[in-house]
Amino acid sequence: MHNTRDYCKLHLVLWFKRSNYEDSPLHIIISLRLNNYKDQILAAKTMDELVALCKRRGFIYQSSEIYGGLQGLYDYGPLGVELKNNLKMTWWASMVYERDDIEGLDASILTHSDVLKHSGHEDTFTDPLIDCKSCGLRFRSDQIPEQCKDEELTEPRDFNLMFKTNVGPIDDGSSFAYLRPETAQQIFINFKNIVDSTSQSLPFGIAQIGKAFRNEITPRNFIFRVREFEQMELEFFVKPGTDEEWHKKWVDSRLEWWINQGISKNKIQLQTIEGEELSHYSKSTIDIMYKFPHGLEELEGIANRTDFDLGSHSKNQNEFNITSKVIENKASNAKLAIQDLDSKEWVIPYVIEPSAGVDRGVLAVLNEAFNIEKLPDGKERTVLSFPRHLSPIKAAVVPLKKNNNDIVEKAKEIKNRLQKCQLGRVVIENTGNIGKSYRKHDEVGTPLCITVDFDTLDKGTVTVRNRDTMKQDVIDQSKIVDYFTNYFKQ
Amino acid sequence: MHNTRDYCKLHLVLWFKRSNYEDSPLHIIISLRLNNYKDQILAAKTMDELVALCKRRGFIYQSSEIYGGLQGLYDYGPLGVELKNNLKMTWWASMVYERDDIEGLDASILTHSDVLKHSGHEDTFTDPLIDCKSCGLRFRSDQIPEQCKDEELTEPRDFNLMFKTNVGPIDDGSSFAYLRPETAQQIFINFKNIVDSTSQSLPFGIAQIGKAFRNEITPRNFIFRVREFEQMELEFFVKPGTDEEWHKKWVDSRLEWWINQGISKNKIQLQTIEGEELSHYSKSTIDIMYKFPHGLEELEGIANRTDFDLGSHSKNQNEFNITSKVIENKASNAKLAIQDLDSKEWVIPYVIEPSAGVDRGVLAVLNEAFNIEKLPDGKERTVLSFPRHLSPIKAAVVPLKKNNNDIVEKAKEIKNRLQKCQLGRVVIENTGNIGKSYRKHDEVGTPLCITVDFDTLDKGTVTVRNRDTMKQDVIDQSKIVDYFTNYFKQ
Repeated sequence: MHNTRDYCKLHLVLWFKRSNYEDSPLHIIISLRLNNYKDQILAAKTMDELVALCKRRGFIYQSSEIYGGLQGLYDYGPLGVELKNNLKMTWWASMVYERDDIEGLDASILTHSDVLKHSGHEDTFTDPLIDCKSCGLRFRSDQIPEQCKDEELTEPRDFNLMFKTNVGPIDDGSSFAYLRPETAQQIFINFKNIVDSTSQSLPFGIAQIGKAFRNEITPRNFIFRVREFEQMELEFFVKPGTDEEWHKKWVDSRLEWWINQGISKNKIQLQTIEGEELSHYSKSTIDIMYKFPHGLEELEGIANRTDFDLGSHSKNQNEFNITSKVIENKASNAKLAIQDLDSKEWVIPYVIEPSAGVDRGVLAVLNEAFNIEKLPDGKERTVLSFPRHLSPIKAAVVPLKKNNNDIVEKAKEIKNRLQKCQLGRVVIENTGNIGKSYRKHDEVGTPLCITVDFDTLDKGTVTVRNRDTMKQDVIDQSKIVDYFTNYFKQ
Repeated sequence: MHNTRDYCKLHLVLWFKRSNYEDSPLHIIISLRLNNYKDQILAAKTMDELVALCKRRGFIYQSSEIYGGLQGLYDYGPLGVELKNNLKMTWWASMVYERDDIEGLDASILTHSDVLKHSGHEDTFTDPLIDCKSCGLRFRSDQIPEQCKDEELTEPRDFNLMFKTNVGPIDDGSSFAYLRPETAQQIFINFKNIVDSTSQSLPFGIAQIGKAFRNEITPRNFIFRVREFEQMELEFFVKPGTDEEWHKKWVDSRLEWWINQGISKNKIQLQTIEGEELSHYSKSTIDIMYKFPHGLEELEGIANRTDFDLGSHSKNQNEFNITSKVIENKASNAKLAIQDLDSKEWVIPYVIEPSAGVDRGVLAVLNEAFNIEKLPDGKERTVLSFPRHLSPIKAAVVPLKKNNNDIVEKAKEIKNRLQKCQLGRVVIENTGNIGKSYRKHDEVGTPLCITVDFDTLDKGTVTVRNRDTMKQDVIDQSKIVDYFTNYFKQ
């Protein structure tokens, strides 16, 4: 929703909706014209609601907001950081812990310019940039603002999306580094280090989670397209010839993983990237597309990067049978090859790369979890139905009386017992209003609320209230740890 | 060890050590002259050993190494990332999970220039830089290299340590951001967001773990002084007047925490920062100093930052009784104050800041854990005696025979059962050599090795070997999960 025309269209559509004129001939005519806007318009409403909830409840704030904000940058608040960390830890566990063939890495953000020269980023990591000669605005050639459409525009020219910064005390442009535009390259250049310090052989992978930076010309759609973001990238090294089979395996595996994070199968589409859309390094890419509030867009890409990357960063390239088109490398001091256990030959492996955006994942998970439910009494409740393992708060312990020391102390004791289970954050919700506490914890997706009342002091029971069913179980407090741990085992 | 003179001194001292001449009069004379080098010399040896182990075993590598490396930047390998994450998670749990008065945050690295103008960083975050007119080298005025000491030098001038980068498509210097030089400022500017979206009142804190960047003129001492590093910072907001009491509490609490991470009390000193060394924002700072391999240096600083930060970033500063010296703020759009629950007055809180370096923490933990032990049979073993909760690998399951399918499958089954306990990484160590596997896992600090052999298939028993005692327990495999979880509960 970037300009006045879109805004008017939105209001027309909303007016038709409110007036129940959706079937009138006039509506149908206008609808046909608006067809390509409709999805966007309906979705924008949901995105706005999501953005508002995220700010109100401490999930996500605009960055540097008190100074007017910085475009395309966001901060994760108390609940956002837990949600994001839970998603990241789930990915890490599925990659590094549950398998035996993947090692982890956490490399620096500042990256040597030679790395991004040989990766192809210096030459090709660009967007076409256009200037409006009338107002001086700059934009991507596929995103010309309404007010500039009839003005004189420059020809599109390449704009490199990498952030640069000077390193060291000499500031004459000779010593700079890039903020990495993807975590992947740091994996490739550490290939030999990791082969030498572990006992992995082909096929095996290296996984990394971390920040990456792209100077997007037009950041947009909340945390979807931003200038600073986090990636979860796996580079899985395989024997040439087995790459297509592994590519397929990883697409299946990643699809299953996202569904386990609460993503509806019917909001996902697989899209094969072809022709000009295919990156220079890729033999074949399949994107996992998700129906975000603003439309169907990439959640994760799974690329067959062939031997392009290790081949590009290797010295003595002529010694190997590199199949992809790499530029000559005189700067690297390492051969990025591995000995094939069967043939004893040194080969440069092919790479399958499942590359997921953490922030996009958070947005998808939030979008799936977000529901406004009509209750039997006619009221509404907002609930974030996160999968249990992703909920930012695992349980809230609620003392019935805010100022009753015995009840509050008992609640703290129970909180501490549950916290020790190491299943995630458990909080005391000491507002003295049970109903409000339940509503609040529905809205932030806490699966269990445990109320401590006078019965707890007299009979030793607590009331456990379930976010999804809204049912309440009265149980003995001695059983609360088992109840809690069993709930999260399911 | 930066130059030839130091190098000769090192060899003299080592020669005296090897020759048992340590008590000779000649040695004493030379020792007196070398006094200030001695710590450094003895320590450097240990640092070199640590650096070598870190690379060999996959803890830490030089960044962008295959392109000659980038000074002051390091990458954490498969074991380093686990060690670092364990340290960070322990800090997060102690701050955010185990207390009820601290909220978490994960804000952006790119920071609005107004933030760092009002924090004082634009004016004061500098080091004195000197040029040698003879060779053109640049260095800090307190670190003049030997070869330049007799040359003509420029007067020291201020060099700002912040990294800058251009943001957006216009590159005329008008739109840039800084890479944050500390995570703290992002906490202060989010103060209102967090107060508004949680139910915290004074005293309460905001905790953040994340990368920060400083363009050090001379990075040095491995991961101690680097250009890209990670911080664990807490800003704890208190009522003015209670700040000194809270400052003391936090010093005690942080000291205890480091000791729980395996840091010897006798290698720690508290140092009160005074006079010119005290930062512009601080009323009082106490540093937790640790005897690193290269000498006694700061591991964590606990500062009483008063109302300087919130006062500096607040609009309408005149409405509040700000005690510290802040510059006028016309850019901020928010009052960073909170209502006192007793007096109902709006006050700008004081801040106590325990600020710890993650990388320095990792270095201290590695240094404490690193031991070369003489064994009864006269041989040596290298062991990293990490506290259990910090060990990168919690257990290694070792099949006796590499190529025996039944044994390997059984080992994998046990690995999966232990991995499900969610206590950290468990690996299969399938080299087929038990002795070598034990040595390797001593060297990377794995507390338990579980060997699967023919008895496992026949009688259902496994052998558990303890890193510290080197004792072996034969237990029934049905008890392995309990054995494992109990071990890590201690």
